Amino acid sequence: MEHARVTFLREEDIDAPVLIEGLPGIGHVGKLVADHLIHELGAEKIGEISSPHFPPQVIVDERGITHLASNEIYRYEKDGKAVLFLVGDVQSNSAEGHYILAEHYLDIAQDLGVGRIYALGGYGVGHLVENPRVFSAVNMEHLRPEVEAAGGSFENARSGGMIVGASGLLLGLGKARGIEGICLMGETSGYIVDPKSAESLLTVLSRLTGIEVDHTSLQQRAGDMEQMIANIQEAEEARGREELSYIG
Amino acid sequence: MEHARVTFLREEDIDAPVLIEGLPGIGHVGKLVADHLIHELGAEKIGEISSPHFPPQVIVDERGITHLASNEIYRYEKDGKAVLFLVGDVQSNSAEGHYILAEHYLDIAQDLGVGRIYALGGYGVGHLVENPRVFSAVNMEHLRPEVEAAGGSFENARSGGMIVGASGLLLGLGKARGIEGICLMGETSGYIVDPKSAESLLTVLSRLTGIEVDHTSLQQRAGDMEQMIANIQEAEEARGREELSYIG
Amino acid sequence: MEHARVTFLREEDIDAPVLIEGLPGIGHVGKLVADHLIHELGAEKIGEISSPHFPPQVIVDERGITHLASNEIYRYEKDGKAVLFLVGDVQSNSAEGHYILAEHYLDIAQDLGVGRIYALGGYGVGHLVENPRVFSAVNMEHLRPEVEAAGGSFENARSGGMIVGASGLLLGLGKARGIEGICLMGETSGYIVDPKSAESLLTVLSRLTGIEVDHTSLQQRAGDMEQMIANIQEAEEARGREELSYIG
Amino acid sequence: MEHARVTFLREEDIDAPVLIEGLPGIGHVGKLVADHLIHELGAEKIGEISSPHFPPQVIVDERGITHLASNEIYRYEKDGKAVLFLVGDVQSNSAEGHYILAEHYLDIAQDLGVGRIYALGGYGVGHLVENPRVFSAVNMEHLRPEVEAAGGSFENARSGGMIVGASGLLLGLGKARGIEGICLMGETSGYIVDPKSAESLLTVLSRLTGIEVDHTSLQQRAGDMEQMIANIQEAEEARGREELSYIG
Repeated sequence: MEHARVTFLREEDIDAPVLIEGLPGIGHVGKLVADHLIHELGAEKIGEISSPHFPPQVIVDERGITHLASNEIYRYEKDGKAVLFLVGDVQSNSAEGHYILAEHYLDIAQDLGVGRIYALGGYGVGHLVENPRVFSAVNMEHLRPEVEAAGGSFENARSGGMIVGASGLLLGLGKARGIEGICLMGETSGYIVDPKSAESLLTVLSRLTGIEVDHTSLQQRAGDMEQMIANIQEAEEARGREELSYIG
Repeated sequence: MEHARVTFLREEDIDAPVLIEGLPGIGHVGKLVADHLIHELGAEKIGEISSPHFPPQVIVDERGITHLASNEIYRYEKDGKAVLFLVGDVQSNSAEGHYILAEHYLDIAQDLGVGRIYALGGYGVGHLVENPRVFSAVNMEHLRPEVEAAGGSFENARSGGMIVGASGLLLGLGKARGIEGICLMGETSGYIVDPKSAESLLTVLSRLTGIEVDHTSLQQRAGDMEQMIANIQEAEEARGREELSYIG
Repeated sequence: MEHARVTFLREEDIDAPVLIEGLPGIGHVGKLVADHLIHELGAEKIGEISSPHFPPQVIVDERGITHLASNEIYRYEKDGKAVLFLVGDVQSNSAEGHYILAEHYLDIAQDLGVGRIYALGGYGVGHLVENPRVFSAVNMEHLRPEVEAAGGSFENARSGGMIVGASGLLLGLGKARGIEGICLMGETSGYIVDPKSAESLLTVLSRLTGIEVDHTSLQQRAGDMEQMIANIQEAEEARGREELSYIG
Repeated sequence: MEHARVTFLREEDIDAPVLIEGLPGIGHVGKLVADHLIHELGAEKIGEISSPHFPPQVIVDERGITHLASNEIYRYEKDGKAVLFLVGDVQSNSAEGHYILAEHYLDIAQDLGVGRIYALGGYGVGHLVENPRVFSAVNMEHLRPEVEAAGGSFENARSGGMIVGASGLLLGLGKARGIEGICLMGETSGYIVDPKSAESLLTVLSRLTGIEVDHTSLQQRAGDMEQMIANIQEAEEARGREELSYIG
């Protein structure tokens, strides 16, 4: 069985110099921002990725239709300025799967001409934050001034740290391919889907990419996401996780 | 070592347009219904599936004979109307194994001409239910009216959710092959092998498939299954799980 | 990397019709009996098996020399009557590894002409047992009378159950190759390395195989094994398991 | 995807007869000693190893630059006496990965002419130790007198024991290749990065290798490492580990 199945929904030229990754993670800040951008810009879905390294499940939508757990690629273009988005419901559920999928994402990125990746995420601090900062990391030193000029903070670096999962590996493995990587992490409690953190993150990202969108629906979107997560958790708790049991 | 070993017990034409999956899961509702159907119809075992992705164990039957943990395929035909069953003691014990096995099941289904899969399961709600509903999900939108007409409820979809394991992947991966998938989940507490939930599920399934069987032995069968599970758990608790320990 | 590396220490004809497996397991009853037989008979080590599916560790012997975690094959012959032993410090530490290794063991067994496997283990009941029974399971029905005649009990079968790990898979996968499999499980509390249980097991095994050894050192051997395990556990608790940590 | 990617930073002859391994482990004693030696000797980084068997993460340095989790090879030469170091931030995060990586390390070692490996680690005893001993194990019996003469203790061997991870497998798998392996484990509480334990270890290692370095900065280095670990842990606790969650 192949490690990842990538299906493109259109065949024409879909190159873009920039990829924005917003997969699920801490506080869903990255996912919230990427989903918001896709919606506000009206970005077009151009590809789907399924993989045996994702959790073995389907998502049931509000009409009762199942969808295989997957990641998706969206594309937006305006005035000759194109950008790709990597979003989805899941990340790999194994360490090795993370590496395998990250290499697949980078293959796709390179095929589509991507030279820079923005990896979006949250930076949990365990308490509510009035004015969330946007912590940053880059995979090449020359990127730092640009990020600082856009309002990204590198204060987090003083205490070292790690970036786990797709965001981390896109930067780490991307560097070996010569792809610039900038990770932006919105400071957040980690307890809620945090629209304030997302707004800070979006502000810095807009300065870096030149992509401007309205922020007003961000709070509503965060609330919807929060509700969706709560519904799923409630259902999961009631049902229990499907223990793969056996009988004689 | 191959990912799955499929052994067919007969060679003649064993095609059938419909596959009913009832592997172990929440409350064993799906397994109970599928086992009941096989028994009442006198369906014939036509194949066995073993795999290194199953738990590494044998089942000991009441005569002391061991049987490798496996899944089985049964077939029933009447008046030119044929149906297959996928049942067994186990599901995969890894995420990747779930994907690998689901693709194998779908290969078999396609080889045997299956165009529609019914995936049976339970939908745990954490409390006893007087009149269990049958929650539903489909992998293609056009299937929904048919399921609703047969009494399947889509109320569960309002809160989103996921279907994990074989049932979910048969729908999710089956869609890409053009195989219709209908998942029926009997509402159940999740604490017992629930004959009421199974009866509701069986009623809806019968309307959808046109297969009618007597329900009277369902309660007895649930009790037997309950007892068997209790015996195994008791034995397991006493024995402890075989910890794969070592000594110097 | 290969799944298992099998090294034979001698090249001449080492065929034998019978293999006795005594890998680590519940109460170490099987290991105790097999190790005792090897010692009392003066069986010769003829092969070693290492595998990436074993725990990633070396054992340090009493002289401070390291030995890669491994399984070993011993051989004993008397009056033209030959028997093989499969023993060792470890079992696989993954479900899939159990299947892979069991197939390797069976390959070896078939190459050496083995037609019957005795899988030895413990059957934990959670309390001390004055007169331990020897519970049994077989992979072919015709074996049962022979086992019962030798004093093996099939009372355990009444409550169903499972046999996990190498013992189970040697029977389950061996059947498909036409190799007879008999699993003998000494009733034991599971709390200690139980010489009484081992003695019962040895008595039944001797009747089945015709191999007689002195039992007097069994208690001493159990005590030594108990001490060795206690030492290791004490050392492990003090040292903590090597957490594979990282620093920035 | 390949199991390990080894990148050499220089092409000229980099052979050396001795490899010193100091990967993360109990109390970070081995890592502390190896890092100290590299720094004091001014050893040169000659290679990097990345692998999908490492944790899926990047390390963020104090400037905010990300570095893929990796192991590194350093080399030091003086008066025609050359030695290699294997160090890094991580070890494999799976049992099978440990075997795969250890074989890769040994391939590299053999390619570079290594005939002897020193594997450095800690030996946790759960309480503070005033005068830490250096416990030892060797993979060939003839090595023991040399280690004892240098002050290595084999008292630990009396109670048996195991060596888990890279240190263990380099000795265990190295033996089959004819590479001498000596494991030195500084007695330590296991609660802190222990400069006293490291100093004892360094003393024995210096006698064995003839490599002398100043010890004065060892305490400072241990403190720095301790602080770095504390920072990471604090950050990790606040942020929570990135749970690879999903939403509907």
